[in-house]
Amino acid sequence: MNKKSVSRLSHYRKVLLRLNELGFDRIFSDTLGEEAGVTAAQVRKDFSIFGISGNKRGGYIIADLIARLDDILKKRTVTRVIIVGAGNLGKALMHYPGFRRDSIEISAVFDIDPTKISRKADVPVLPLEEVGEFIAAHGIDIAIIAVPDVAAQRVFDILQRAGIRGILNFTTMTFKDNEDVVVNNVYLQFELENLIYFTAEKPA
Amino acid sequence: MNKKSVSRLSHYRKVLLRLNELGFDRIFSDTLGEEAGVTAAQVRKDFSIFGISGNKRGGYIIADLIARLDDILKKRTVTRVIIVGAGNLGKALMHYPGFRRDSIEISAVFDIDPTKISRKADVPVLPLEEVGEFIAAHGIDIAIIAVPDVAAQRVFDILQRAGIRGILNFTTMTFKDNEDVVVNNVYLQFELENLIYFTAEKPA
Repeated sequence: MNKKSVSRLSHYRKVLLRLNELGFDRIFSDTLGEEAGVTAAQVRKDFSIFGISGNKRGGYIIADLIARLDDILKKRTVTRVIIVGAGNLGKALMHYPGFRRDSIEISAVFDIDPTKISRKADVPVLPLEEVGEFIAAHGIDIAIIAVPDVAAQRVFDILQRAGIRGILNFTTMTFKDNEDVVVNNVYLQFELENLIYFTAEKPA
Repeated sequence: MNKKSVSRLSHYRKVLLRLNELGFDRIFSDTLGEEAGVTAAQVRKDFSIFGISGNKRGGYIIADLIARLDDILKKRTVTRVIIVGAGNLGKALMHYPGFRRDSIEISAVFDIDPTKISRKADVPVLPLEEVGEFIAAHGIDIAIIAVPDVAAQRVFDILQRAGIRGILNFTTMTFKDNEDVVVNNVYLQFELENLIYFTAEKPA
């Protein structure tokens, strides 16, 4: 599996949860593809890799698909994640409703600024020098980097030394996967470029 | 062109800018694909759609590719964008370095909270009721929604009525494209799900 196909599974799952809430119980690959912005063939291919099959007459049963995707995407247990950087972005991510709803819990936030430390908060903000200890004590595998670009490399190195295995990077620096760490770089400007392309193309 | 292929162009451009800074001047589709996480065939297919061709012996000239992508992605002029919501996320986006670097300028931020208004700031924060007037006066086409989920639908409707043509939605609500507006929904949890999948799969 590559990263893009796993992202498509996340997208299918979100569409299915919505349809399920609306009371639908079956779906065809063409409808699911349309909702998720891919072709029906892509949907069938992605599902067949995981041994999920529908039938031509009835399509897929939505509840079964969600259960299967929950297994694949590890949604049955809560995953604890830490954030480095308690600035605006870190604080926004700390309270992002999409995480909790999808079994992701922010366990703590770390910062070098002593004025931001808040040990007793619901989600504690702790000094960066405690991050290694925290990761070891709580078995944390995944960290979010939400610091200024200039600090990104240093934080990346600290996290890698502390044994983190997955990093979501919100700086505009680019980090690559290595033997120990899987990295997803989030480039928010791509989403805007996309809109600019499509709005410029459309006749006014 | 669909949204995903335009996103790939953004990604190619970012890789090419980095390689250009490092002093490279030519690239083959397999290297570019590897850096961008897609196959060489995908790179060639995406480029051929836009009439970009390399040659088998020498590959593509990086500077030419960047110039062509700058044209396609409208990078030669600054695009002005507004943000609705001056909370943590709105403030983080207001200062996101990836925007300015990619010819995107945040012109103003809008909020309903009178204590957040700041007309004289570098990027002014204005009352939401002025958004329609501002959009018309400044010819704004694109808006970012960074408000709590509960306010998302109302803000979407206000923006659409004001003639906005592209919306980047950071709430966890899902909006669909319609005849007048192109929407990109950003689901930050997908990026984490992705990491969870790949870190769980890797042997400890």
